[in-house]
Amino acid sequence: MAGSTYGKLFMISTFGESHGTAIGGVIDGFPANIEIDLEYIQTQLDKRKPGQSNIVSQRKESDQVQFLSGIFEGKSTGAPIAFLIPNEDAKSDHYDHLNDQFRPSHADFTYDKKFGHRDHRGGGRSSARETASRVVAGALAKLFLTQKGISIHGFVSQVGKIKMSSEAVQSADFNLIESNAVRCPDLNLAQEMENLILETRKNGDTIGGCVSCIVNGLPAGLGEPVFDKLHAELGKAMLSINAVKGFEVGSGFSSAEMFGSEHNDIFKSDGSTKTNYSGGIQGGISNGMPIYFKTAFKPVATIMQTQESIDSAGNEITLDGKGRHDPCVVPRAVAIVEAMTAIVLMDFWLRQNAQK
Amino acid sequence: MAGSTYGKLFMISTFGESHGTAIGGVIDGFPANIEIDLEYIQTQLDKRKPGQSNIVSQRKESDQVQFLSGIFEGKSTGAPIAFLIPNEDAKSDHYDHLNDQFRPSHADFTYDKKFGHRDHRGGGRSSARETASRVVAGALAKLFLTQKGISIHGFVSQVGKIKMSSEAVQSADFNLIESNAVRCPDLNLAQEMENLILETRKNGDTIGGCVSCIVNGLPAGLGEPVFDKLHAELGKAMLSINAVKGFEVGSGFSSAEMFGSEHNDIFKSDGSTKTNYSGGIQGGISNGMPIYFKTAFKPVATIMQTQESIDSAGNEITLDGKGRHDPCVVPRAVAIVEAMTAIVLMDFWLRQNAQK
Amino acid sequence: MAGSTYGKLFMISTFGESHGTAIGGVIDGFPANIEIDLEYIQTQLDKRKPGQSNIVSQRKESDQVQFLSGIFEGKSTGAPIAFLIPNEDAKSDHYDHLNDQFRPSHADFTYDKKFGHRDHRGGGRSSARETASRVVAGALAKLFLTQKGISIHGFVSQVGKIKMSSEAVQSADFNLIESNAVRCPDLNLAQEMENLILETRKNGDTIGGCVSCIVNGLPAGLGEPVFDKLHAELGKAMLSINAVKGFEVGSGFSSAEMFGSEHNDIFKSDGSTKTNYSGGIQGGISNGMPIYFKTAFKPVATIMQTQESIDSAGNEITLDGKGRHDPCVVPRAVAIVEAMTAIVLMDFWLRQNAQK
Amino acid sequence: MAGSTYGKLFMISTFGESHGTAIGGVIDGFPANIEIDLEYIQTQLDKRKPGQSNIVSQRKESDQVQFLSGIFEGKSTGAPIAFLIPNEDAKSDHYDHLNDQFRPSHADFTYDKKFGHRDHRGGGRSSARETASRVVAGALAKLFLTQKGISIHGFVSQVGKIKMSSEAVQSADFNLIESNAVRCPDLNLAQEMENLILETRKNGDTIGGCVSCIVNGLPAGLGEPVFDKLHAELGKAMLSINAVKGFEVGSGFSSAEMFGSEHNDIFKSDGSTKTNYSGGIQGGISNGMPIYFKTAFKPVATIMQTQESIDSAGNEITLDGKGRHDPCVVPRAVAIVEAMTAIVLMDFWLRQNAQK
Repeated sequence: MAGSTYGKLFMISTFGESHGTAIGGVIDGFPANIEIDLEYIQTQLDKRKPGQSNIVSQRKESDQVQFLSGIFEGKSTGAPIAFLIPNEDAKSDHYDHLNDQFRPSHADFTYDKKFGHRDHRGGGRSSARETASRVVAGALAKLFLTQKGISIHGFVSQVGKIKMSSEAVQSADFNLIESNAVRCPDLNLAQEMENLILETRKNGDTIGGCVSCIVNGLPAGLGEPVFDKLHAELGKAMLSINAVKGFEVGSGFSSAEMFGSEHNDIFKSDGSTKTNYSGGIQGGISNGMPIYFKTAFKPVATIMQTQESIDSAGNEITLDGKGRHDPCVVPRAVAIVEAMTAIVLMDFWLRQNAQK
Repeated sequence: MAGSTYGKLFMISTFGESHGTAIGGVIDGFPANIEIDLEYIQTQLDKRKPGQSNIVSQRKESDQVQFLSGIFEGKSTGAPIAFLIPNEDAKSDHYDHLNDQFRPSHADFTYDKKFGHRDHRGGGRSSARETASRVVAGALAKLFLTQKGISIHGFVSQVGKIKMSSEAVQSADFNLIESNAVRCPDLNLAQEMENLILETRKNGDTIGGCVSCIVNGLPAGLGEPVFDKLHAELGKAMLSINAVKGFEVGSGFSSAEMFGSEHNDIFKSDGSTKTNYSGGIQGGISNGMPIYFKTAFKPVATIMQTQESIDSAGNEITLDGKGRHDPCVVPRAVAIVEAMTAIVLMDFWLRQNAQK
Repeated sequence: MAGSTYGKLFMISTFGESHGTAIGGVIDGFPANIEIDLEYIQTQLDKRKPGQSNIVSQRKESDQVQFLSGIFEGKSTGAPIAFLIPNEDAKSDHYDHLNDQFRPSHADFTYDKKFGHRDHRGGGRSSARETASRVVAGALAKLFLTQKGISIHGFVSQVGKIKMSSEAVQSADFNLIESNAVRCPDLNLAQEMENLILETRKNGDTIGGCVSCIVNGLPAGLGEPVFDKLHAELGKAMLSINAVKGFEVGSGFSSAEMFGSEHNDIFKSDGSTKTNYSGGIQGGISNGMPIYFKTAFKPVATIMQTQESIDSAGNEITLDGKGRHDPCVVPRAVAIVEAMTAIVLMDFWLRQNAQK
Repeated sequence: MAGSTYGKLFMISTFGESHGTAIGGVIDGFPANIEIDLEYIQTQLDKRKPGQSNIVSQRKESDQVQFLSGIFEGKSTGAPIAFLIPNEDAKSDHYDHLNDQFRPSHADFTYDKKFGHRDHRGGGRSSARETASRVVAGALAKLFLTQKGISIHGFVSQVGKIKMSSEAVQSADFNLIESNAVRCPDLNLAQEMENLILETRKNGDTIGGCVSCIVNGLPAGLGEPVFDKLHAELGKAMLSINAVKGFEVGSGFSSAEMFGSEHNDIFKSDGSTKTNYSGGIQGGISNGMPIYFKTAFKPVATIMQTQESIDSAGNEITLDGKGRHDPCVVPRAVAIVEAMTAIVLMDFWLRQNAQK
């Protein structure tokens, strides 16, 4: 209720601050008897962790997940699955100077207004480090969904003004995603994006981007009418990721420019559709076609440049650029987008299963 | 849980099909002792109802709301507020031919897959008529928020390719919104939009558009960390409205093209910011600046043209264009966007109040 | 969240005051394609309604339920099921003198303290009339559970000091329940109970009692570990019924006097147990044996005698005994106990189904 | 949703099996800026832990709680509070023989039916060890409630047939509770109870009992109408504790034998009542009088005697009495009853606060 819990039947609560002893989570609602591939879960975490390439933060965290409960002899027991990821490289002293200062476009000011009392070390709870716990929960959900024939592929489709077309997104070759540090399946664009990120970092700056995601194999009928439409919940999940400013499904914002006669997806006799402007969802419920959506990430607020700001007393101050942050968040965000997608889909899968 | 209920502390459940005897809703969690201005609620409904101008559906519904409980001697009692809106002009026979047919880009196919058994009359539960109940709940929430000094203004910022700039949106004159049938505060664009809608209708076609919304007077501190970020919940609420395909807050998708050094909102000594790319929300929590966001609506799927489709047996059929539908949904959607915004904000207001 | 909503997957929200235009409810989460026997639902309501015999309140309410949505061509559609029960015999003027007065052991004082603003007519929301809506929802749940082979039988096992033994309760002949106005399957005790109730009414007084309930056919595995144990949720449901002061399952309070060596239920080779002190539930989860529990109802607070009290200003006043109330609530409460049991079991059935 | 999470605004999720590496919990919804007295929390845990006296289990667990998040510089931050209690003395090999066996009146059989896959070591998730996490959460809630002037006192009021009268319970001297190992404030009865427990243990048997609980200082107005009545939620919370078979509030089961004219609590001019059969709750809402309720615990199922049972194949087996268990659970259960009471009250306190 206080915001750190997501889901109705597959419920994940995350906890922990970026500079405390550990972060982690508890999952309540994971069905019994599912085989848990611990190695797979770690590979998902590795896609999110810092230090994996030269275009991401060089902060060092091994991000080794430790499971505390709910798994016995390699399988889920139906009991809550709790896990920890220790914080190893938390240099709190890096942040001591921030005790009383509000960094621009961070959550410092708003947390202060909301809670009065704030763990200022590295953003505390508002740090994107929290998303590592989501990746663990998402990896568990993926293990479940894979058994049902459902696959999820996220990738970078835009960095700055370099972007893939909607057609290119829909026909992306998933095998190429991990072939480059940016995680873009268009190798030419990937190279351009990497160059832009490196140049941006050289300037002490950061740059925004977009992650696209495609779900294949989802059966028709998932999602709920009215408020809990499938894409509404996907939208909430994506918008809950740090730095996300926009979400669109299927034709998205381009649909505002279209006529009904061009936008309508005409059925084929097998129930599939000739086009897929709907993005695999109609009336909030999956129709069996691929689901695709796009999520926009703003540039990271921490830049390596001097900025003006204020402290909590309203005094004007000058902030130096310090720390080890990402020049562009989207390559690491791919794992988070996939994880949140899996969490949403598994929750809907269980909800639909309940009614059968 | 089955999708027709929204909110945690301000909880609204809607019910009813477009061609049943009535639609309506129940609100659980409205505080006691709030004065209820019934006339105001009706004016909100009137902004959504069909037949209000020459650019919307000519279906006739007086949309008179009847309250059944929770209000006594002009004030809320703290008990659930139930209400009905009778369906007057429901010509079910218009839809008899749809019994077995799947209209393109409607929810016919997906409801059939999900529920097996379907009320095919006018879309049943998937009809946008359901949103009238949201407008009633939203009007009640607005009465509450107005007491707290919070105002919400939605308006049309795009129809087809005709669109307001982000700067124009942020400096819109709210007094002009109701001056034209389109509900666009830029009167020149409003005229162009109206022309486009009329021309589109003449062609038996429909056209998409966008609704922008601005919230003023919201105190800093609303919204919850992590999953229930203020803009994540606003996004879910908007994406749950029929025909919505995209949502962006503040700089939105344009942030993907920006550098951190331009995007960061620098604080002034009073805690306000020089720019507002954040859209009034940082770390998922309001910062006291105006909140603004944009919602994209696809073109209405019902067009007055002949379309190919299939029936439930997979036979190819031809659908004629029949019925009384909107050539463009955004002028009427303004009321729904405002209502969902109010519902979200009131829920967060109560959640924040609980923790004080 | 504000208390008028129950259930996680089978969710019922009730609304309405005893002297408003109508009471009713909305169910969200009833699966599609279940045949709805409207006549059966009305028979359940008739067991609760006043005026049915000479030992209950003579208030006249036909209690005819009207369904507004969610049912089409005799079957559930999966959409919310909304219903109304009009208030016909609401003589508000009977209660005008209560505007400012606190009746002893009613909710007048506490509602006033909680809400400030109160609908004083007949208790408003705290009136037991609200339970009619629960009976409708429970009847729908029973239709579902009956399809799964699950039966629920409630009956009166105690009025004043006249009571059935635990053994008699467990071997009750359900066919005899409806043979007498008290709804006690032991016909000798039923006659004694009826005499006691009539004598109590003659004295202008009221008397307490107990309702026992037995569930047969429930498969093993329903209920959740830890907080949502099957009997914990049944207990909450029963204690939420007006006038209930106690709940026990299986051996109940008598277990406090027993040794483990006598209380343990020894298994037979088919998995059933030789005794059933557990009441069909172990570790919060059904074990396939009959479930039985008992609910204690205090005497109705409205008596036909003069009582001292206070008004809202703290002035001492004298209350006359007026109105048409029940001398003993348990005969009518049987229908409510069964309904709440059905609601709880259906919710757990769906929850278990989700995980399969 | 899967049962290991409790509360709406003060939400506690517990995790961990009795013989895994650790148990623990996560609290979401604890307000910011509350001083956290870690020593106090440990004293509450110590009241529950085994080995504290000669009448409880001699299992050795230091039960040292470790906080992982949500507390910074001695105060709550508003972020989730996660904590661990390592399992130190978990002799899993004690339980290896139980792999395939169903102990009578344990959860072995029902967990097996529900989940298929079971952590058989020491009962896994169904072990009462889980309640240590509740005590931690309850201690945090007590820190909050104490600030509001609310006190909670649980004590043993019955062991076997030795019991305190209702009058004695209501006038108990709380200072005497911790003066004896049984935690009974009537010192004569305490001695009798202790003797009975020691004798029962000598016989290799176990015995049931009751815990009473009194809440003072609760303001009028807490609790919600209809389903979430204050005593309904207290009842659920108590019935969710291992081994509980019954719950009664105020006059409880004795009310079934009473007349309205004796049961009604007559108001005094200050709003208090001359008697308190209502137990401090009317219409589900606190009235400012002391709240008192009683919870019945069955005898512990693990006895040191040979018992017949079956294995999972239905074969008849003989179980030896082994392990280190409690001859009577109520002295240690006092801490759990108090903790669950605090959790319920804090949740209702926040819910009421939200509506103000």
